[in-house]
Amino acid sequence: MDATTVKKTTPNSATDRYSRERLINRFKAIRDFSDQLTEPLEIEDFVVQAMENTSPTKWHLAHVSWFYETFLLDKVYDNYQSLHPQYAYIFNSYYLQTGEPHTRSKRGLLTRPTVREVFEFRDYVNKEVFKFLENATEEQLREYGPVIEIGNNHEQQHQELMITDFKYMFAQNPLCPAYKDLKLPDSKDVPPLNWVAFDEGIYQIGNKGDEFTYDNEHPRHREFLEAFELSDRLITNREFMEFMEDGGYERSELWLDDGWATVNENEWDSPLYWTNKEGQWHYYTLSGLREVDPNEPVTHISYYEADAYARWADARLATEAEWEVAAADLPYKGNFVEEGHYHPRPLQDRSSGLKQMYGDVWEWTKSAYDAYPGYEPLPGALGEYNGKFMCSQYVLRGGSCATSETHIRKTYRNFFYPDARWQFNGIRLARTV
Amino acid sequence: MDATTVKKTTPNSATDRYSRERLINRFKAIRDFSDQLTEPLEIEDFVVQAMENTSPTKWHLAHVSWFYETFLLDKVYDNYQSLHPQYAYIFNSYYLQTGEPHTRSKRGLLTRPTVREVFEFRDYVNKEVFKFLENATEEQLREYGPVIEIGNNHEQQHQELMITDFKYMFAQNPLCPAYKDLKLPDSKDVPPLNWVAFDEGIYQIGNKGDEFTYDNEHPRHREFLEAFELSDRLITNREFMEFMEDGGYERSELWLDDGWATVNENEWDSPLYWTNKEGQWHYYTLSGLREVDPNEPVTHISYYEADAYARWADARLATEAEWEVAAADLPYKGNFVEEGHYHPRPLQDRSSGLKQMYGDVWEWTKSAYDAYPGYEPLPGALGEYNGKFMCSQYVLRGGSCATSETHIRKTYRNFFYPDARWQFNGIRLARTV
Amino acid sequence: MDATTVKKTTPNSATDRYSRERLINRFKAIRDFSDQLTEPLEIEDFVVQAMENTSPTKWHLAHVSWFYETFLLDKVYDNYQSLHPQYAYIFNSYYLQTGEPHTRSKRGLLTRPTVREVFEFRDYVNKEVFKFLENATEEQLREYGPVIEIGNNHEQQHQELMITDFKYMFAQNPLCPAYKDLKLPDSKDVPPLNWVAFDEGIYQIGNKGDEFTYDNEHPRHREFLEAFELSDRLITNREFMEFMEDGGYERSELWLDDGWATVNENEWDSPLYWTNKEGQWHYYTLSGLREVDPNEPVTHISYYEADAYARWADARLATEAEWEVAAADLPYKGNFVEEGHYHPRPLQDRSSGLKQMYGDVWEWTKSAYDAYPGYEPLPGALGEYNGKFMCSQYVLRGGSCATSETHIRKTYRNFFYPDARWQFNGIRLARTV
Amino acid sequence: MDATTVKKTTPNSATDRYSRERLINRFKAIRDFSDQLTEPLEIEDFVVQAMENTSPTKWHLAHVSWFYETFLLDKVYDNYQSLHPQYAYIFNSYYLQTGEPHTRSKRGLLTRPTVREVFEFRDYVNKEVFKFLENATEEQLREYGPVIEIGNNHEQQHQELMITDFKYMFAQNPLCPAYKDLKLPDSKDVPPLNWVAFDEGIYQIGNKGDEFTYDNEHPRHREFLEAFELSDRLITNREFMEFMEDGGYERSELWLDDGWATVNENEWDSPLYWTNKEGQWHYYTLSGLREVDPNEPVTHISYYEADAYARWADARLATEAEWEVAAADLPYKGNFVEEGHYHPRPLQDRSSGLKQMYGDVWEWTKSAYDAYPGYEPLPGALGEYNGKFMCSQYVLRGGSCATSETHIRKTYRNFFYPDARWQFNGIRLARTV
Repeated sequence: MDATTVKKTTPNSATDRYSRERLINRFKAIRDFSDQLTEPLEIEDFVVQAMENTSPTKWHLAHVSWFYETFLLDKVYDNYQSLHPQYAYIFNSYYLQTGEPHTRSKRGLLTRPTVREVFEFRDYVNKEVFKFLENATEEQLREYGPVIEIGNNHEQQHQELMITDFKYMFAQNPLCPAYKDLKLPDSKDVPPLNWVAFDEGIYQIGNKGDEFTYDNEHPRHREFLEAFELSDRLITNREFMEFMEDGGYERSELWLDDGWATVNENEWDSPLYWTNKEGQWHYYTLSGLREVDPNEPVTHISYYEADAYARWADARLATEAEWEVAAADLPYKGNFVEEGHYHPRPLQDRSSGLKQMYGDVWEWTKSAYDAYPGYEPLPGALGEYNGKFMCSQYVLRGGSCATSETHIRKTYRNFFYPDARWQFNGIRLARTV
Repeated sequence: MDATTVKKTTPNSATDRYSRERLINRFKAIRDFSDQLTEPLEIEDFVVQAMENTSPTKWHLAHVSWFYETFLLDKVYDNYQSLHPQYAYIFNSYYLQTGEPHTRSKRGLLTRPTVREVFEFRDYVNKEVFKFLENATEEQLREYGPVIEIGNNHEQQHQELMITDFKYMFAQNPLCPAYKDLKLPDSKDVPPLNWVAFDEGIYQIGNKGDEFTYDNEHPRHREFLEAFELSDRLITNREFMEFMEDGGYERSELWLDDGWATVNENEWDSPLYWTNKEGQWHYYTLSGLREVDPNEPVTHISYYEADAYARWADARLATEAEWEVAAADLPYKGNFVEEGHYHPRPLQDRSSGLKQMYGDVWEWTKSAYDAYPGYEPLPGALGEYNGKFMCSQYVLRGGSCATSETHIRKTYRNFFYPDARWQFNGIRLARTV
Repeated sequence: MDATTVKKTTPNSATDRYSRERLINRFKAIRDFSDQLTEPLEIEDFVVQAMENTSPTKWHLAHVSWFYETFLLDKVYDNYQSLHPQYAYIFNSYYLQTGEPHTRSKRGLLTRPTVREVFEFRDYVNKEVFKFLENATEEQLREYGPVIEIGNNHEQQHQELMITDFKYMFAQNPLCPAYKDLKLPDSKDVPPLNWVAFDEGIYQIGNKGDEFTYDNEHPRHREFLEAFELSDRLITNREFMEFMEDGGYERSELWLDDGWATVNENEWDSPLYWTNKEGQWHYYTLSGLREVDPNEPVTHISYYEADAYARWADARLATEAEWEVAAADLPYKGNFVEEGHYHPRPLQDRSSGLKQMYGDVWEWTKSAYDAYPGYEPLPGALGEYNGKFMCSQYVLRGGSCATSETHIRKTYRNFFYPDARWQFNGIRLARTV
Repeated sequence: MDATTVKKTTPNSATDRYSRERLINRFKAIRDFSDQLTEPLEIEDFVVQAMENTSPTKWHLAHVSWFYETFLLDKVYDNYQSLHPQYAYIFNSYYLQTGEPHTRSKRGLLTRPTVREVFEFRDYVNKEVFKFLENATEEQLREYGPVIEIGNNHEQQHQELMITDFKYMFAQNPLCPAYKDLKLPDSKDVPPLNWVAFDEGIYQIGNKGDEFTYDNEHPRHREFLEAFELSDRLITNREFMEFMEDGGYERSELWLDDGWATVNENEWDSPLYWTNKEGQWHYYTLSGLREVDPNEPVTHISYYEADAYARWADARLATEAEWEVAAADLPYKGNFVEEGHYHPRPLQDRSSGLKQMYGDVWEWTKSAYDAYPGYEPLPGALGEYNGKFMCSQYVLRGGSCATSETHIRKTYRNFFYPDARWQFNGIRLARTV
């Protein structure tokens, strides 16, 4: 990782956070990391959109640059000239207030601009942002520092999506191409699951605001929680295969109604990417097709599967508030993208207490994604970043093996529709005492 | 209404609630009310399923009878003989544990059994249930009283669905047939909207259990609410038309992302059943096509429209806990189905405080339908009644002009998908102070 | 059949054909026959549209009356008053030049007008037509006689559709209701198939015009045919089951590409209405569910299945010209609707030569439905009767057990899309020598 | 074009046709021409499948190589080793008898093999075929010469598809990238349309067999044609715009029923690739977006549009037999792909008689694609080349600006579904005298 790794440093104040030096370093490191992630790809791999929910790698790379143009450069310069007048149209994702975007499902039809041209576009934007950062007044830094930091976090989110999107794309190919040929980790048996208890009480949920955050983590507010317990680790492939062997995918009583319909419509009988070859479960990983490791956390499952597994196990999923209370002061350590595994790892830690809360897999919660009481979206088009998705999606917590360590927080709220399986999502159990 | 009207009486205890006399009276009254509701229909009107979410009237009538057969008569008698061996298949709705049901979308293809035969089936079941109730031991009454009461409440729910389903069906007909030719109510202008304030605090939410309830109202538990306000009355057609005139249906920034997609896909520009004739909005009512009365509560809107209206009005929808706290000890009075209007009514009450909390229209809340902490579904197939729908639906509170007065409660949780418009659903605003 | 049976008489000339007496008799007989066909139905059975290609019985009954209003009564009377101003909208099928018709797929949503009202509409139209026929001048008879005769033939076509449509509807019902409880015919084994040879040569194809005809049978023109042979009888269920047992539905090489896609998409493994119960094939008939009679002509198959069967049997389907040449002067005898079987019958005739050319089942030809050289559609909206369907459909010849004897002709061209199975369609083989 | 241009030489006999030298030359020239066609493309352009009917350029390039492996190399060598064991699966198009092919709609998901690897695959196959051709015995040449010649013709068909497919792909891109920047031709006004008359009579249709042909051109047989006339040239953009201005796309009476449904469903109001900018029609061409040249033959229209135009013009389309009779001994001259225009050209020829019969645009005929009397498909999987598509498609004649001059013949039958617009298809009128 070396030079491009982004150091996890928490500045003491907003002033520090938006200092010229820190902004330049963060911007550079994150932009470089995008380049680094795409190094193993062939030109052809940048082009394809393998399903509507995914995007071509080159679209991701251009879109995150468009973001700086739209929300920074167009604002600070009177006559900012984009590299190409139509990029604003084809690389807008969903910001309706900045103009009608190109149809999402058609991103994979655009062979031009070429990959080379997209990198030229990135360079062009980099130069403009650096120029701004180097010459900005302190007042401008205070005003636009938060925008740049949103741009940085935005790019980190798209780095995670790039990984999950090209994984999905490679998995459609009967040749099962590997992204990187990575060594298998040591896999030793995982100890039985234990429960960690938490008291009832009124808790503060949401972010205090002394670090960079998204609007959806605010305002900090109170919630009363009845006493609850969380499992001390993630559910493993071995445990999930027990569910499967017990008829998990064939027993309607274990499933939500929507989930049962989805299972039957799509003929699901295992997590995404799994295939049974002569009685042995295999899965596509970014290192190619491999035998399922029973000690790894199960991943690439929908909310429906997480919920059904929990019901089978006489438990339930946690609420996001429970998760946040439990995370308390746990350090931000785990199997993040910086580790370079691009896959969840078998549990190594044999200590007691909560393990694997960060990294490895996003943990489905039973909380529908909604506004906190008193929530206010950012003004203008940036208000579309989070707020308009607060419907019919479920919150996930903790980050995954494709998330940047400097991107995650205790109060961070990820969200997906309940049928989404292509992210590195997994299961931690909870129960009301 | 006369003889068939069900009296709203709250028995003092479970013993009273499941007394032989009360069970017989309730069962009779509710069964009779179904007959009464269908009197204005022609035979043809019983047959059609106008969309997948609705059912033919004769299917409703038979299904609620099947319910008593399946959950009562089959249990209490060793060799209960149904009137027809295949009715158990064609009149099961979604109880997978009682056997594969007939495909939901094909209910409207079954011209047989005929309407006459369906009423014969009802009579057959009535006789069997009366026979049971007259001869049951006290122990049997204690054991099966709750099941009969679920059956009664179940039939009341289907009475409401019958009304909304045949309304939807008639509305598809260019002839705009009337169900009943009802007099227009007095319509006087509605006073400006006021806000009623509630304090922050820990509240008890859910049912204590001293009355009949569904499993989803349990367990009673604590929730902390930040201080909030509710509008003192429902939003009117006049107010909703102001939203429409202000470009409500054309301004993406007012909408949830899913809502905006739904509006555009379906080309919505007004509530369901509305049509513009020469500049004047009309709607189909169960008395035929009429000019929109600006003083009535707006209805036949989706969650998306309720949410967009609230955003336009600088407010939000209430959570279901807020609604329940506000309802507190309000009496169960309102424009229920027993009034025989089958349509919401302009506000008559000029007193201060909350008005129209019960009846008229179900009030969309911003709460995703989910299990309360510690929730346990009923055992067996009845566990499918509520629990498996706790995903991607939104809770509504308070009952409507199609709900029975004896069916509603403060803790009652109705739920629909956010795009559902054919129920009598409407808007009350809330805000965080 | 008695009074209502339409006598097959060929008048000597157009004058005779359109004589007052003949027009009155034909009109009366055909209108009465529609009533007679619907006698066994319950009111509920008139309402349902079981798939988009079918129509409710009451729609058929009203639509054929609308036809006389639109193409006769509206023309001959200056101020003809229809019984209801909106019937012209809801009972138009596809005549775009007479105004936008009600959406085809929504015919089954209209419970009103009721069945009783539809019969009142029929009576109203009957009276008006009789009044016209009794009072028309000779000139009017010459002008409108052909229109009435189109109306009569149109109603006969809809009589056939009514039968196939309510058969389709009943077949969707797990109760398998019978339309009529008809006796099984004698079924004796059918002799081996023989071939009847025809010489090459230039033949006259199409109608001379000395009888009532549709525009699509014109103009009479010449076609050169290479020598060919036709099988002397229809393919039986026994023969078709041999195809099935030989893997007919699983062998891609037997199928047209579109056919193979259709078979797999719909999981066809037998003709429509067939179901295998404990190793024995049964089918739904208008007398209910019965064991398949191996001696009957196979029916309810698509063009794809007819084509695949023929390929399996080292033969092909006939062209429509070949069929017409072969039919030559054969009498119009066969198992038509007047026989009252509503089902094809096992071959009884043991004579040599072509058998079963008329009645029993429509015979799929390999001829795409197209205009004869010099074809001209009727002027005005009646030009939409046939011409606009001359694309992607296939011609069938000979009539079926649901066709009226007085409706069929040697030159008659029926047509359906190649995936249509709900008509009484079957197979006769042909080969080039 | 130079070195790679394939000379149009008709060898005197099958022996000459399959001589070693000729086979080597043809194979080399055609393989080289594929390379040449793809030279202007960027790597990204080879990957995308812009709709299900099209294929990625690299798929085309690999598939035509797979063809030689499957139908030649696997047959002539006992242990032929393909370059990659899975290419046989992913590059099979639709030959079910050679094994289940990869899903057609997913060809664009395969970024690997890369473009470089596909060209390596082509080289590998080239070497193997050359090796075979150089060493084959005379007997082998007689046996496999026809297979190689099918392979050559097959590659020529895919060259045409490559052009139309990448045109379709580029046209989806808002940047309107040009394939080649070609000079505009001289465009002078086209003289009024004249009619060329042909006598009634029995004609020989189909191929005599003294040149390479597909099975669908056989057997040569007789057809009787009534007297007819053909327009002496193709319909121009000017003429088609007159149809448009006369409400052509809004007048239901001009359209086949299927066509009218297609027009409305897809909101067609002009040929494919046309767009109206400030009152002026433009179209996407392989040289980018240009103003419509009124003198060019109209192209990129469906059968429905060709048929509607003909009806509007009081004419009809020709049958394929009429076209073939008219083509008689016309020389194979025209605007073929070897000209390098990749677009139809304004008529230059001012002579009388039929013009533009070859090249420019394929001419829709009114003939459904069907087997000639006595037709026999090739044995084995090659029998799937043509026969199984003889359903619901329409025949086109004469080749286009994307067709190779050495590929076309008087008896050549191209075929597409009636809604296909992405090929260079156009209109010649016919009428029955």
